Amino acid sequence: MAFGWIDEQARARHRAGLVRTLRARPADSPLLDLASNDYLGLARHPEVVEGAAGAARRWGAGATGSRLVTGTTELHGELERELAGFCGFEAALVLSSGYAANLAAVTALAPHGSLIVSDAGNHASLIDGCRLARGTTQVVGHADPAAVRKALGTHPGPAVAVSDTVFSVDGDAAPLARLAAACRESGAGLIVDDAHGLGVLGDGGRGAAHAAGLAGAPDVVVTVTLSKSLGSQGGAVLGPARVIDHLVNAARTFIFDTGLAPAAAGGALAALRLLRREPERAARAREVATELHTRLTASDLDAVRPDAAVVSVRAPSPERAVRWAADCRAAGVVVGCFRPPSVPDGVSRLRLTARADLTAGQLDRAVRVICETRP
Amino acid sequence: MAFGWIDEQARARHRAGLVRTLRARPADSPLLDLASNDYLGLARHPEVVEGAAGAARRWGAGATGSRLVTGTTELHGELERELAGFCGFEAALVLSSGYAANLAAVTALAPHGSLIVSDAGNHASLIDGCRLARGTTQVVGHADPAAVRKALGTHPGPAVAVSDTVFSVDGDAAPLARLAAACRESGAGLIVDDAHGLGVLGDGGRGAAHAAGLAGAPDVVVTVTLSKSLGSQGGAVLGPARVIDHLVNAARTFIFDTGLAPAAAGGALAALRLLRREPERAARAREVATELHTRLTASDLDAVRPDAAVVSVRAPSPERAVRWAADCRAAGVVVGCFRPPSVPDGVSRLRLTARADLTAGQLDRAVRVICETRP
Ligand SMILES: Cc1ncc(COP(=O)(O)O)c(C=O)c1O
Ligand SMILES: Cc1ncc(COP(=O)(O)O)c(C=O)c1O
Repeated sequence: MAFGWIDEQARARHRAGLVRTLRARPADSPLLDLASNDYLGLARHPEVVEGAAGAARRWGAGATGSRLVTGTTELHGELERELAGFCGFEAALVLSSGYAANLAAVTALAPHGSLIVSDAGNHASLIDGCRLARGTTQVVGHADPAAVRKALGTHPGPAVAVSDTVFSVDGDAAPLARLAAACRESGAGLIVDDAHGLGVLGDGGRGAAHAAGLAGAPDVVVTVTLSKSLGSQGGAVLGPARVIDHLVNAARTFIFDTGLAPAAAGGALAALRLLRREPERAARAREVATELHTRLTASDLDAVRPDAAVVSVRAPSPERAVRWAADCRAAGVVVGCFRPPSVPDGVSRLRLTARADLTAGQLDRAVRVICETRP
Repeated sequence: MAFGWIDEQARARHRAGLVRTLRARPADSPLLDLASNDYLGLARHPEVVEGAAGAARRWGAGATGSRLVTGTTELHGELERELAGFCGFEAALVLSSGYAANLAAVTALAPHGSLIVSDAGNHASLIDGCRLARGTTQVVGHADPAAVRKALGTHPGPAVAVSDTVFSVDGDAAPLARLAAACRESGAGLIVDDAHGLGVLGDGGRGAAHAAGLAGAPDVVVTVTLSKSLGSQGGAVLGPARVIDHLVNAARTFIFDTGLAPAAAGGALAALRLLRREPERAARAREVATELHTRLTASDLDAVRPDAAVVSVRAPSPERAVRWAADCRAAGVVVGCFRPPSVPDGVSRLRLTARADLTAGQLDRAVRVICETRP
């Protein structure tokens, strides 16, 4: 029978306790959210919501076509200019998701005959970008600039190194300055995914590349998502204008995809403007993460020191991680739960996200619930 | 220098006259649009716009996380149920774009050791799905069920055939019933991308699979986009519940991507409800396309008879296609222009899209301008 083999996989997942199911949340959930990526608490901010609603009214519910046909509005241009300016890059290109932005950047910048050196901890979208690209991928150990240098040294043609800036599983930061130095030694480009850095790291949330002094560098390309700290949807590639022009001409997930919906562009633009006006939100998200880490480790939980707004707490097994997360939820606190196969190292963890708008009371409650439900 | 090789490519594009540039449109463009994929004229319909704006207000500007973490709202569930019901499938899964939906369906349903038989005219997103999938891809001639049958016959393991229902370049329809028969002979699954069929083909716009009697079949999976006839953004996979459950557990562009923004889900849901209430919109889009084709061929232009709402008109060369499209625009009519490398056969064409809401006067004007500017 067609698709018959999926039933055996489904049974195996059941046996292993690894079934994933969707749980729809209501609009007025009473639960405390420590699982979303809404780091600055902007997704429901009135200005951001009005940015989205107003854009739908003014520009329509959809972009109506590829950005190259009818899908580019002046709003897309405005967002690209402000985003590039904010992060310190010459140009930006907005796509329908951060996933699409990563596929675009990696595939368009790693042609046939090129080498891609990819961190073992990279996000699925970067990995898929490597798999789709015509170049050859070499995976190197996690956060290891010496390994990157070594891999690049052996290749004669064009080459790029590819890394998350903040790794989504453990929330640790990549050694960006050293990565860039390794790339420069051999004339390679550097592509970094700042999904979890934009709005959180760097001066006023300008991101990890800005913090590392790499903003606007001719050999650095940054991808971001509009769906985390900017509370909306979409992604962007930031870099030299000549690289962005190249993507317009060569990136399939840009060319053959409908432009980002005006509401998403309008929401992200409003969030960006709010962040410019209230730059302390970025620092606050980091403070909340540090506070969370300090208090959890003080209670003898095994948490990774956060470099941004993600706090990862180890659990003894996949089953107990799932149980722990469920117990937190039952006590009113939603936490993320990472387990195989979405963690490469097989270690299950709770994944907590700090939000700039968490109150002291909410933080107390979160810490209390997480500690009381520990396995 | 890093990324140095892109400059030579840019020069080659310039020499060949194949440079793509973005042109931002204003909110109140006076131009007549025959280039967008807004087939039913719903992107700016007040109910659809309010569906989007209202959803942003109620649910926030973004989904805030993966659909498996915080990114599934009750709105997503509602859209999935209504979409599946409308198209006649057991279940649906909404993703952030049609592109992501195609990547999800093909990669999750073509595991290691499987065979994918892919039509030579398939959309870029299906092609990328084939490249990302662990299975082996065999490309067969365009719209050739006998070739599909032959390719499937030789493979012992799981297999799928993959095809657009309406091909985006020429607007011709795939022989769905014969494809399904070919698949059934060997127990293979069939995945069809109904991006240009939903809202246009089938009873009241229920799509090409419904029209071919394949809706709800256990061996058929349909992908759709919310960005064309539904005037919004996003994509969905429709199929048996067990297949959709499998995607929730296995499709990387679903698992590792932020959920579709509420505004996009709300806009698409409003458009779907409008289409249910006004099913004549679907037939009207087809009528406009037929009328356009009839009048252009009566003027001796070489246009492909439309099976849906896309009308393709051949141009003598890439340069003259570009010039023709520019002349149309100068005369107030926006048309699409397809040329290498985005057409596999090297034939450049104007690509016109019929909209259900084009008036007789607009149609007259469009035909007059296209004929007067012919190369
Ligand atoms: C590191 C990283 N990159 C890229 C993405 C994809 O971004 P988006 O959800 O906007 O597609 C995500 C998460 O979703 C991520 O965590
Ligand atoms: C046939 C086909 N499939 C898929 C897509 C991708 O859909 P989306 O733009 O929603 O990503 C498109 C066009 O954009 C298309 O024409």
